[in-house]
Amino acid sequence: MTDTPTAEPLSAEPMFKAEYLKPDGRELTLYSASAIEGVGPIPTPGDPVHATPQLRWHPLRGEWVMYAAHRQGRPFLPPPGYNPLAPTTDPANPTELPEGRYDMAVFQNRFPSLSLNAPTPPEVAGVPVRAGVGQCEVVVFTQNPDATLASLPAEQIRLLIDVWADRTTVLGANEHIRYVLPFENRGVEVGVTLHHPHGQIYAYDHIPPVQERALTQMRSHMQQSGRPWLQDFVAEEQQAGLRVITERAHALSVVPPFARYTYETWVLPKRAVGLLSDLNSDERSDFAAVLHDALRRLDGLFGVRMPYLMTVQQAPTDGQDYPEWPLRIELYPYLRAPGRMKYLAGTEQGAGEFANDAMPEQKAAELRAVVLEEVKCAEG
Amino acid sequence: MTDTPTAEPLSAEPMFKAEYLKPDGRELTLYSASAIEGVGPIPTPGDPVHATPQLRWHPLRGEWVMYAAHRQGRPFLPPPGYNPLAPTTDPANPTELPEGRYDMAVFQNRFPSLSLNAPTPPEVAGVPVRAGVGQCEVVVFTQNPDATLASLPAEQIRLLIDVWADRTTVLGANEHIRYVLPFENRGVEVGVTLHHPHGQIYAYDHIPPVQERALTQMRSHMQQSGRPWLQDFVAEEQQAGLRVITERAHALSVVPPFARYTYETWVLPKRAVGLLSDLNSDERSDFAAVLHDALRRLDGLFGVRMPYLMTVQQAPTDGQDYPEWPLRIELYPYLRAPGRMKYLAGTEQGAGEFANDAMPEQKAAELRAVVLEEVKCAEG
Repeated sequence: MTDTPTAEPLSAEPMFKAEYLKPDGRELTLYSASAIEGVGPIPTPGDPVHATPQLRWHPLRGEWVMYAAHRQGRPFLPPPGYNPLAPTTDPANPTELPEGRYDMAVFQNRFPSLSLNAPTPPEVAGVPVRAGVGQCEVVVFTQNPDATLASLPAEQIRLLIDVWADRTTVLGANEHIRYVLPFENRGVEVGVTLHHPHGQIYAYDHIPPVQERALTQMRSHMQQSGRPWLQDFVAEEQQAGLRVITERAHALSVVPPFARYTYETWVLPKRAVGLLSDLNSDERSDFAAVLHDALRRLDGLFGVRMPYLMTVQQAPTDGQDYPEWPLRIELYPYLRAPGRMKYLAGTEQGAGEFANDAMPEQKAAELRAVVLEEVKCAEG
Repeated sequence: MTDTPTAEPLSAEPMFKAEYLKPDGRELTLYSASAIEGVGPIPTPGDPVHATPQLRWHPLRGEWVMYAAHRQGRPFLPPPGYNPLAPTTDPANPTELPEGRYDMAVFQNRFPSLSLNAPTPPEVAGVPVRAGVGQCEVVVFTQNPDATLASLPAEQIRLLIDVWADRTTVLGANEHIRYVLPFENRGVEVGVTLHHPHGQIYAYDHIPPVQERALTQMRSHMQQSGRPWLQDFVAEEQQAGLRVITERAHALSVVPPFARYTYETWVLPKRAVGLLSDLNSDERSDFAAVLHDALRRLDGLFGVRMPYLMTVQQAPTDGQDYPEWPLRIELYPYLRAPGRMKYLAGTEQGAGEFANDAMPEQKAAELRAVVLEEVKCAEG
């Protein structure tokens, strides 16, 4: 860590980066496509939080559950006008971020579900318990509190790809971190209480169940066909055409034929790689453009801001090679029709099996038909 | 099937049962603790629905996804005053149920996600696709549209255990059905649009992913210890005491030490069995009483009707023995504090790993402290 800004262009597109430590010891990194300038004192909005996350083993689901009792003190509805993700303008009323010229910011969550300093928890008879080792970060997408990701300029989405790539490299370089998951949860409908555009990153000390399962499946495909699954999948979707939403030279978006959500959208590179950092500059630009396109279509579909979950599905960061891994962004839009949310009910939660009321082929056609020039709702 | 009511007492508690076919070919079964009398003409609320459910294989999650495009025509907000789950009083305005003296009713869902008559779907290149074979039923808990399960008399909960047991036996006897999942999704907060107290049953032609995973884990425990997991778990929870909510001679409720939801509650028999139908009459009565207790505590906790998902986790019904299977009811309450819903965000959906902000030991103490005599909100 350093408290002196440093500029590190990481790809063909310039990216500036400055690392700081907050007064309470948390890491803060500023990112920008142009020079970072005029950064004020590094603030923190409250007393240090002593995080004591722990993991307990669920013996039937065969997965860890994270416990973070210290999170119960976190803000729910902040006082009117207070936005912890905006740059600090009044030192008497500090936010998480300093004033200054920068595009994006990443800092350690004040109430993390995982911590590299997690203490060993007390034992529980019959249940494996261990420290919740990992890191949780907040990614602020812009200084504009009224924007949405879809409404940002294309260059900002391109920068976000580089920021996610850099965070994955930085976090993955830690000997304890084996998996890095960037995501955005968007919409009051799904409990988002801070409306300033932002996402999160969870860095785990193990490969989580969804990724473990995918690895098993993808290895099996590669052993049987000799090719990474993504290569076959892209070829089949291009040939079928039915489910492709947008295609560029190095990336495309589809409603996958096995979509679990009505308007589920996957953004895929055409070359099978494991990490965002494996994509070259041209590939990143196309990947960013297709993601931008996908986000705008979701907002344009019903003329309302689509609530969604976006996850960046990369390979593990445990130092091994994962030639079978299909890098992609999965977008789960929560509306299945105007005003009609998809809820996870008995079959989804109790059996792990999704029920989808619509065919992917039809929903891809609807997303293709969105006229991007007329998308207004996302302009904030 | 028969259109003549028959009475079949199935356990030490009397249960009367009458089977019918609806005019559109769907099955209807009435259940009652006392004699079924005065049943009117069997109604159906609309034209027959041609269900064409299909399954597609998700290659990364390694699970089937159900598609039921015919469900898009189903009612969302019924016209004011129309309740399809109430007994029909005006033949010109038919509901799903006839008038008459009976306690509960089960009928095939008019818009099912699975059907025993599902046709073979068209192929999709590169993706395994097959007919969505199974059955989806609706279970109406009472004729009173304003009741809740928690507010019903204890005898009615006891009857529900028998009804679930009987449906599992009936559906499981079909050669195509390998797993039967009864559940209740409760609350407008989670998309329930019909407020008449009811649950559902999904009967699958395969063992779903959550149960498949549990079987693997439970077999491993049995091989290593020689005992079913449930036996060890009940002994450990009784000894620890911390997480027990209510205990009777043959059943108990706990917040499991690996709870994923804040007030997650499991209702467990003390004897390790696979199916509700394996419980004897005394065990069923205690199991029902502990379930009733658990439901009332959840409503009493914050003085509001707790939105929740309840699933009945039984062994597969494929004719094999499952001595390792832990029969239980899992209750997932969706409120983590008054007015604060738990949403499944990035880590839960994108990684399959739950984050819980509270320790099970503390939440069990809160549930124990609910004074049942003062629970008013559930009285409807």
